[in-house]
Amino acid sequence: MRGFFHEDFLLGNRTARRLYHDHAARLRIIDYHNHIPPDDLAGDRVFPNIAQAWVNGDPYKHRAMRIAGVPEALITGDAPDRERFARWAATVPLTAGNPLHHWTAIELRRFFDIDEDLNPDSADRIWTACNERLQAPTHSARGLVAKAHVECLCTSDRLLDPLDAHARLAASGFETRVLPSLRADDVTAVDDPGFPRWTSDLSAAAGIGIDGLDAFRAAVAGRLDHFDRAGCRLADHALDDFAYAPADDAGADAILRRRLAGDPVTDADLVRLRSTLLRLLGIEYGRRGWILQLHLGAQRRTSSRLRTLAGPAGGYAGIGRATDIGALCAFLDDLERADALPRTILFTLNPADNAALAVLTGSYAADGVPGKVQFGPAWWYNDHADGIRAHLAALSSYGLLSAFVGMTTDSRSLLSMTRHEYFRRILCDFIGARAEAGEWPRDELLLAEIVRAIAYGTPRRWILGGTGGTA
Amino acid sequence: MRGFFHEDFLLGNRTARRLYHDHAARLRIIDYHNHIPPDDLAGDRVFPNIAQAWVNGDPYKHRAMRIAGVPEALITGDAPDRERFARWAATVPLTAGNPLHHWTAIELRRFFDIDEDLNPDSADRIWTACNERLQAPTHSARGLVAKAHVECLCTSDRLLDPLDAHARLAASGFETRVLPSLRADDVTAVDDPGFPRWTSDLSAAAGIGIDGLDAFRAAVAGRLDHFDRAGCRLADHALDDFAYAPADDAGADAILRRRLAGDPVTDADLVRLRSTLLRLLGIEYGRRGWILQLHLGAQRRTSSRLRTLAGPAGGYAGIGRATDIGALCAFLDDLERADALPRTILFTLNPADNAALAVLTGSYAADGVPGKVQFGPAWWYNDHADGIRAHLAALSSYGLLSAFVGMTTDSRSLLSMTRHEYFRRILCDFIGARAEAGEWPRDELLLAEIVRAIAYGTPRRWILGGTGGTA
Amino acid sequence: MRGFFHEDFLLGNRTARRLYHDHAARLRIIDYHNHIPPDDLAGDRVFPNIAQAWVNGDPYKHRAMRIAGVPEALITGDAPDRERFARWAATVPLTAGNPLHHWTAIELRRFFDIDEDLNPDSADRIWTACNERLQAPTHSARGLVAKAHVECLCTSDRLLDPLDAHARLAASGFETRVLPSLRADDVTAVDDPGFPRWTSDLSAAAGIGIDGLDAFRAAVAGRLDHFDRAGCRLADHALDDFAYAPADDAGADAILRRRLAGDPVTDADLVRLRSTLLRLLGIEYGRRGWILQLHLGAQRRTSSRLRTLAGPAGGYAGIGRATDIGALCAFLDDLERADALPRTILFTLNPADNAALAVLTGSYAADGVPGKVQFGPAWWYNDHADGIRAHLAALSSYGLLSAFVGMTTDSRSLLSMTRHEYFRRILCDFIGARAEAGEWPRDELLLAEIVRAIAYGTPRRWILGGTGGTA
Repeated sequence: MRGFFHEDFLLGNRTARRLYHDHAARLRIIDYHNHIPPDDLAGDRVFPNIAQAWVNGDPYKHRAMRIAGVPEALITGDAPDRERFARWAATVPLTAGNPLHHWTAIELRRFFDIDEDLNPDSADRIWTACNERLQAPTHSARGLVAKAHVECLCTSDRLLDPLDAHARLAASGFETRVLPSLRADDVTAVDDPGFPRWTSDLSAAAGIGIDGLDAFRAAVAGRLDHFDRAGCRLADHALDDFAYAPADDAGADAILRRRLAGDPVTDADLVRLRSTLLRLLGIEYGRRGWILQLHLGAQRRTSSRLRTLAGPAGGYAGIGRATDIGALCAFLDDLERADALPRTILFTLNPADNAALAVLTGSYAADGVPGKVQFGPAWWYNDHADGIRAHLAALSSYGLLSAFVGMTTDSRSLLSMTRHEYFRRILCDFIGARAEAGEWPRDELLLAEIVRAIAYGTPRRWILGGTGGTA
Repeated sequence: MRGFFHEDFLLGNRTARRLYHDHAARLRIIDYHNHIPPDDLAGDRVFPNIAQAWVNGDPYKHRAMRIAGVPEALITGDAPDRERFARWAATVPLTAGNPLHHWTAIELRRFFDIDEDLNPDSADRIWTACNERLQAPTHSARGLVAKAHVECLCTSDRLLDPLDAHARLAASGFETRVLPSLRADDVTAVDDPGFPRWTSDLSAAAGIGIDGLDAFRAAVAGRLDHFDRAGCRLADHALDDFAYAPADDAGADAILRRRLAGDPVTDADLVRLRSTLLRLLGIEYGRRGWILQLHLGAQRRTSSRLRTLAGPAGGYAGIGRATDIGALCAFLDDLERADALPRTILFTLNPADNAALAVLTGSYAADGVPGKVQFGPAWWYNDHADGIRAHLAALSSYGLLSAFVGMTTDSRSLLSMTRHEYFRRILCDFIGARAEAGEWPRDELLLAEIVRAIAYGTPRRWILGGTGGTA
Repeated sequence: MRGFFHEDFLLGNRTARRLYHDHAARLRIIDYHNHIPPDDLAGDRVFPNIAQAWVNGDPYKHRAMRIAGVPEALITGDAPDRERFARWAATVPLTAGNPLHHWTAIELRRFFDIDEDLNPDSADRIWTACNERLQAPTHSARGLVAKAHVECLCTSDRLLDPLDAHARLAASGFETRVLPSLRADDVTAVDDPGFPRWTSDLSAAAGIGIDGLDAFRAAVAGRLDHFDRAGCRLADHALDDFAYAPADDAGADAILRRRLAGDPVTDADLVRLRSTLLRLLGIEYGRRGWILQLHLGAQRRTSSRLRTLAGPAGGYAGIGRATDIGALCAFLDDLERADALPRTILFTLNPADNAALAVLTGSYAADGVPGKVQFGPAWWYNDHADGIRAHLAALSSYGLLSAFVGMTTDSRSLLSMTRHEYFRRILCDFIGARAEAGEWPRDELLLAEIVRAIAYGTPRRWILGGTGGTA
């Protein structure tokens, strides 16, 4: 049987096909938020086999294999790579209807020129073919990035990371811009048992003794400056079950001192301290012209068993309750009152939030800054055809799709760069179908301009500045 | 290029086209809830230019312009009307996919016979053409209402409003029935600093000294009688983040006395007092045969900056959390236990409530009263093609669409009367598509009867009584 | 006019028609959760007329009649059966777009070979025709079940039920397997005034004096064993507005003793006790290899008036708030930590939960157990074409549809067995449409395998064990 993927995949109307093939497909990629290990790029990692490049580190695949009943030892245990790949191959046909089925076809086609569906019959052939290709210079870590036409990608880095890999990358002449971005959750993890220890590491890294809020802020600011010099343009926070109730500086200072001294602190005081630190960070980002990303609505505590077996990001996280929009608004308003509201991208894992977040794109504004507050692309488990359509529909109905900052992968895998292709196909199909139904203007110049802005122009302007770029 | 709008706009199937053109399009409008200033109609206001009729007071347009990056001074500041209109014209192409794009096309066509899309190229022509038309007697405030074939409209009026404009309108022979309706939020705004002052104004207006709950109720009842004599048929309450925990009368009396005396009152006591007053009002409405409208799910506190610049209804409100259905049920049940549950229309700004509110249409009932509790039409930011479809889908799947009380604009602008056309097109398309797919009966007599009931018959019966009317 | 139903009803594409007619339509039914009275089957009840078989006990129809304004006396009062049927017939045309309209057509066709739409014109003919058929042996309770090709059905039985009807059924040679299943809400109804009384009944039934938690657990375990011997494979809990905060055993023991002694117990302690009992039950189910069903998101308190008039399950329940996913995860994790997490089916009445519950299917797992945690089929008010599609879409996008345990009716009516046909048509249409659009593989062998697994193979394996069965 012919493979699943074909060149008009997901392009269900003529307008979509023109928009995609004549415009979207030709644009380079700006992937402004992902979890690619910068060391893989700095060292130009070569993957010994397709399991290591594609299966072993992918929590989406692990989830699907679990639902299919595959024993955990063959998923995240110490089974041989060949065996893990075989189990994944056997799971693929069962993923019909899931985005993994789509991604699998696109990734095999784009990176390995494989036109055959992955299943137990084809598993051997595909294993061999991929492994051969992976040894070629075209398929090292940098080779894969180049193959995907990535102009710029932003990794996620912790505040105390020295950013050495980024320094090596910047000096290496690699044509893709690889920028650090700040994953800032350490700074606000005040209920984590390791917080005092982390704070003393911060103290050492910044060369500042931390005895209270002012010194904490100064130490953090020093690290932010380090990130800024390394090209950082964004920070992100994971706000699961977000609450916001900041203390004033004196109050937060007192709580922080108690926390660092190991004295008991109430849950309410931890919320106050965390809220204060979040506000403090937001203001620092705003002053540096950074972009603030908020990742809302995850439920990370599910199965203790899987946490033990598969580690903290093992694919068993869930979708949490809908966002407390009042708390979110209070936070953004506090930053705006301090005249330091950064450009902000709101991501939610709970699609019941879609309308509310899409509306917020019109609730904060700044003169001359189009789309200052963004409803980020369909995130994580929502990154499938229906989820992307639901996001685009919400954004166009409740906001201006034309101002959208576009797709990012949030992925740990280089092969996920094809998600931009996936997104662009769905975007073109969405707009084309609505144009042909008379709900959008049938003005292909305008439609192409909007597609190009979302797929490339706006994210490039947000991350790299300027107004265009060589797409 | 030909304009965006055409006579079969949004009518994607044959059945829809017949239902719309042969039935829905011919019916007059009952707009049972809006914010048209009654003075504009009493004085038959003439608009000096299209910016004043259409742009300057429209928070939807202001939102879109903000997302497009237009400086606030050119949106709600003191820029000249011509300049504001130019900024709006430049924003229109960027609204592709947003209902503003649809509304713009319909309003220019229906009120000004303009078949051209609004954009920077056409802005001058359209500015001139509209302004000329606006000086004609056909385009005064009353002219616009007549042009839109409005049989009856209900404005929103505060309890202490003397309703003079309504008295003048009633005496004027204007063929459209213009009725007051009560926007009752003042009465329950017990946490507002101005509440004691408002209460003393109520005391003066009613001629009753207010020393506690009984006198408060009597004074309110007097004003309700005044509204009733002026033709009021509905009241509405904005219940953002609705909580319901009424005190008994003695408890509420004590809280009210403390509140009026300026003594400190806890937040919990304010909720109790507010809940008690809401129940008290609901019972008064029920006894008068009025209709109760509840507007749920708004998040009005967002940007303090925009509140300062653009005023309290400046287009920056958001969508709040999903409704506490338990609280809502307790409130409705309390009214029903008092044998005074009014006919009720539930509006939500959060579409995550759609299924829950659609189901509630079957949870309260009265013998011989079809559709006693209604899930009101897609409200405010939900008033777009997808939102209307989602509302219709929820109502037909979880309730009876045939019993629906239909569309209202909730708008401040006379030009918004075309939203009824927008709604009717989508309604006909929705029913027609499902009939052609075999999910609804292909019995066009029945379908037309349902369309006519929703578009005209039922709202007319609810507001003006009787069984039909000259459509 | 030809009747509404036809053989390709809801099958909007060629693939769907093949999948349905060649595969799904031929499979027998496993209805693993319903409220069929086992006495009706044990005694092979004959229904005197169609009102008694179809209208009088159906809360869905009662809701629709209320929305249509039918007086309650003619719905649940003591009106003659003929009159109730007439009122229902008059309501049917008003249900266009509601699933009742679909179900009515299917049920009349499948059980009574009636091809005519029910409405006031046809009511007399249909009344007469159905009543005649109902007197035939083919239309007794068992006849209806046989006619519907039901291989196995699981009723809902209370813990103290002696299960006599089930014993008679097992001995009767009735070819449909009728199994009891446990509706366990009595056990956790600690805030019910009747709880102490129920506990003393439990004590008597189990022959164990209940003086605290250990004895309570032992008595419950004895009854579970009784159910297990009678073939019970599932238990279910209705968790409206679910909270989870278990005490330790000593704490729960103390609260239980106070509760049984009639001493005052705080609401928080009731939550702790209920949570502890729920955990205790879940562990018992897990140890017995039972399946746990959780029914989430109902709002049962609405109209006191209708509760009085129509009884506790009178069709006026609503949809409650979205599920507290954190609480749900904590409960499942507690069972898993005890090494006793049963296979679990999560049902929600609030479709805003769909994505979150679909994701949870990948958050708990067991080696060699495909689909251990399930997102159950579109439940109760969601059992309509859009609701089923939304459920299937969520499950396929966020989980693996191929592992789905499939449809159950949750109905009190034997005629509702046609809901499996309704579900299967929509399932085939869903998959077929997506396959033809290129989003699912166009591999009809695979698609048919998935359809057969969902419609029959997986539920049969879950309830009856083994790997196949004579479909």
